[in-house]
Amino acid sequence: QTDISKLPRITQELVNPPMLPKHDQVSTGQKVVQVRMVIEEKKMIIDDLGTEVWAFAYNGSVPGPMIVAHQGDYIELTLVNKSKNSMVHNIDFHASTGALGGGALTDIAPGEEVVLRFKATKSGVFVYHCAPGGIMIPWHVIHGMSGAITVLPKEGLSDGKGNKLTYDRAYYIGEQDYYIPKDENGNYKKYATPAAGMADELEVMKTLTPTHIVFNGKVGALTGKNALKAKVGETVLILHAQANRDTRPHLIGGHGDYVWERGSFANAPKVDLETWFIAGGSAGAALYTFKQPGIYAYVNHNLIEAVLKGATAHFDVEGK
Amino acid sequence: QTDISKLPRITQELVNPPMLPKHDQVSTGQKVVQVRMVIEEKKMIIDDLGTEVWAFAYNGSVPGPMIVAHQGDYIELTLVNKSKNSMVHNIDFHASTGALGGGALTDIAPGEEVVLRFKATKSGVFVYHCAPGGIMIPWHVIHGMSGAITVLPKEGLSDGKGNKLTYDRAYYIGEQDYYIPKDENGNYKKYATPAAGMADELEVMKTLTPTHIVFNGKVGALTGKNALKAKVGETVLILHAQANRDTRPHLIGGHGDYVWERGSFANAPKVDLETWFIAGGSAGAALYTFKQPGIYAYVNHNLIEAVLKGATAHFDVEGK
Amino acid sequence: QTDISKLPRITQELVNPPMLPKHDQVSTGQKVVQVRMVIEEKKMIIDDLGTEVWAFAYNGSVPGPMIVAHQGDYIELTLVNKSKNSMVHNIDFHASTGALGGGALTDIAPGEEVVLRFKATKSGVFVYHCAPGGIMIPWHVIHGMSGAITVLPKEGLSDGKGNKLTYDRAYYIGEQDYYIPKDENGNYKKYATPAAGMADELEVMKTLTPTHIVFNGKVGALTGKNALKAKVGETVLILHAQANRDTRPHLIGGHGDYVWERGSFANAPKVDLETWFIAGGSAGAALYTFKQPGIYAYVNHNLIEAVLKGATAHFDVEGK
Ligand SMILES: [Cu+2]
Ligand SMILES: [Cu+2]
Ligand SMILES: [Cu+2]
Ligand SMILES: [Cu+2]
Ligand SMILES: [Cu+2]
Ligand SMILES: [Cu+2]
Ligand code: NA
Ligand code: NA
Ligand code: NA
Ligand code: NA
Ligand code: NA
Ligand code: NA
Ligand SMILES: [Zn+2]
Ligand SMILES: [Zn+2]
Ligand SMILES: [Zn+2]
Ligand SMILES: [Zn+2]
Ligand SMILES: [Zn+2]
Ligand SMILES: [Zn+2]
Ligand SMILES: [Zn+2]
Ligand SMILES: [Zn+2]
Ligand SMILES: [Zn+2]
Repeated sequence: QTDISKLPRITQELVNPPMLPKHDQVSTGQKVVQVRMVIEEKKMIIDDLGTEVWAFAYNGSVPGPMIVAHQGDYIELTLVNKSKNSMVHNIDFHASTGALGGGALTDIAPGEEVVLRFKATKSGVFVYHCAPGGIMIPWHVIHGMSGAITVLPKEGLSDGKGNKLTYDRAYYIGEQDYYIPKDENGNYKKYATPAAGMADELEVMKTLTPTHIVFNGKVGALTGKNALKAKVGETVLILHAQANRDTRPHLIGGHGDYVWERGSFANAPKVDLETWFIAGGSAGAALYTFKQPGIYAYVNHNLIEAVLKGATAHFDVEGK
Repeated sequence: QTDISKLPRITQELVNPPMLPKHDQVSTGQKVVQVRMVIEEKKMIIDDLGTEVWAFAYNGSVPGPMIVAHQGDYIELTLVNKSKNSMVHNIDFHASTGALGGGALTDIAPGEEVVLRFKATKSGVFVYHCAPGGIMIPWHVIHGMSGAITVLPKEGLSDGKGNKLTYDRAYYIGEQDYYIPKDENGNYKKYATPAAGMADELEVMKTLTPTHIVFNGKVGALTGKNALKAKVGETVLILHAQANRDTRPHLIGGHGDYVWERGSFANAPKVDLETWFIAGGSAGAALYTFKQPGIYAYVNHNLIEAVLKGATAHFDVEGK
Repeated sequence: QTDISKLPRITQELVNPPMLPKHDQVSTGQKVVQVRMVIEEKKMIIDDLGTEVWAFAYNGSVPGPMIVAHQGDYIELTLVNKSKNSMVHNIDFHASTGALGGGALTDIAPGEEVVLRFKATKSGVFVYHCAPGGIMIPWHVIHGMSGAITVLPKEGLSDGKGNKLTYDRAYYIGEQDYYIPKDENGNYKKYATPAAGMADELEVMKTLTPTHIVFNGKVGALTGKNALKAKVGETVLILHAQANRDTRPHLIGGHGDYVWERGSFANAPKVDLETWFIAGGSAGAALYTFKQPGIYAYVNHNLIEAVLKGATAHFDVEGK
């Protein structure tokens, strides 16, 4: 039995996606990783038409921030529900064990906060999301209320054959499906409060057909001047989370050199994939070493979802 | 060439899902497993609104009963089509070889019965379903007419690295997609006979959007007082079949310690999964050892499908 | 650095799907594989109702022809956009590296041609498709504008445990989703030019619900008298490509003896699968040795997609 009070504690500064917080690839020893997230309910514009969603945003972003730890570490999260919010929220970590992943322990009303501590017993990249019970579960999740945690093996990543794998950069792509109601003229509706949209939104959700499927919260959040940067010769770790709906990442002009499709690093990665598959309610990881400069589109390769719904990012790769 | 007449014969008493029939995890020797299933066409209520479906039910249940055998065993099924039924039915075993999985050999009219014998040459958990030809195939399947068979390796399960895996309990979850037509007021329609609903149902089926996605035949069949029981420290085998549509099982607060996603035990299981993926027309298997007491929701982690369509079960885990 | 001008060059005669061009299973040495494809825009009937699509057809077929090479070979494609066509087209190879998979190098207007050369550095079966930018990408792809290339390992296929795998026949199944608009009477619309249908088609595409899902371009292209032939005892390689949408192949009465689900031959195949899963935007491979004569249906085992949308083929297996 570990005496947690004797473990070193580090405070991890969470950052906005698609970035990861500062971290070591190889563990320097078991520790307690302290993080703090503030939940904000806020209107967000999600496309070039000015379409609005009430984002339920862990730390103000969709997706919520990436946490990074090593296998065996403890995560100690302070979760704050801002007093100006209107809803009870909580957090369910797929990385944790018991108590509905933490959901049963973390219900907080506006103005409240809670501390959740759990041990990261399994390595991999795992989804977290709000799960306040019943229809609130999918309804909060499709308002953007999910994120991910990466639990690295103590020795870092490996190819399953005894060879270490490292990365020069890491990016975190959260894919979000939205279900925005339309009025009788076919225009997307806007709501003065989150609750005002709920009845309409449940009807769109039942069609299982999102109106928007986006990376990093909105159409174009990771394209053009917001493209992900890399250099020729660099190995990039791409973490892709989807809390609700299946997706199939593809890097146009590149490949998945090493891919953990279900995100668990305890399994040997697949190699040399053209496209990989992330099950709804999970996160996966891929490594690619860029060999040529240029713009690479990174898509959910249902091309309708990529182009007509929004699930496209760009890598802008310099070098020669 | 085996002289089948000299093999020991056992009669396996089939039981209602989510239970499995009594069986050994390790084979006691090659045998003929005799089973009998009676097909019943009957009205079934599938949700709290009183929505009806004409279930085409192998042995009276949706899904049909689980059969359990070992690799190399023969299965000898007597299939009975009750005389009060209205349709020709048959059975196609994904576990069998040739003759359209048995479908070509087993067409029976109401009042008839047929005996099918096949050798279980491959280990794994496999779907069976009715496949009477043409549009009758999906139409029967979406009326609940599928089940599964588990073919254990002779030596039982293993982790693919030489270590045996055993379970303390086993549960069988059949996930069913229904496509119930609505009238002009938006209420689910009821039909005096199965055939009366067919034209309407085909139109809903073409949308590829189920109105209901349920475990064990109906919304709530495995929640609340019907929750699946387990104890802390027990290892549970969860067999999940979906004859028609993809699904992504997730145990909230738990994991897949060992997962055979495609259900074939000839492949090493994946480990430590947050969520796994079952392709439509297949069955998969997962082992989990419960570490904490409490209620665990087990869902298809498209959360809209879990909550708004019905694909949720509960595990009620005692201990400390 | 290889001096490409010194490598032997072979001209590969492309053939219509479901056939593969003549090829060796084991490489006879690094080479340049020269192929030529002519793009044709042409009306095609896709079902028994006479429903029409404007096919954007690499070499006149949907899917485009299979190319076969070995790992390390160079592919040198001459791509011709017929002068009577109306659109700019190009080609993006998932097998290639850089330059948007070739898409950035190959835009050609009607009447133009272009030569693209790339090295097949990764083994596997990979999709290629037209990717002319923006909404043109999904719109061209759902007009049938995709195909596949098989890059065999130099030593041929293997089971990942040191045993070689060979095949007696190979078939290539391209699965295509179509989104055909209907008029106010519910009849499929016809358009005098490809461009005339675009606005309507984008609306159907946004539903993410195909009206047709077919093998080899049209309903019934591989059934009845067009069934795929094999003999008892033969091992058949089945290559299955879907450029846009997930699918779950199943051989009724057979199995996947060896399956490369994501199509990369650098991974050991899974064995003994009832059903396998191909992610949209990829191609997979399966080997099966037929044990019994008869008709085997090969389906996308969402049975609604197989029967009501069209995704069914037949194998006609002779012998005893
Ligand atoms: Cu929430
Ligand atoms: Cu591509
Ligand atoms: Cu039936
Ligand atoms: Cu959860
Ligand atoms: Cu095109
Ligand atoms: Cu079958
Ligand atoms: Na969990
Ligand atoms: Na994961
Ligand atoms: Na079978
Ligand atoms: Na299976
Ligand atoms: Na590529
Ligand atoms: Na592939
Ligand atoms: Zn919430
Ligand atoms: Zn809302
Ligand atoms: Zn979850
Ligand atoms: Zn039947
Ligand atoms: Zn059936
Ligand atoms: Zn089947
Ligand atoms: Zn084109
Ligand atoms: Zn493309
Ligand atoms: Zn592509």
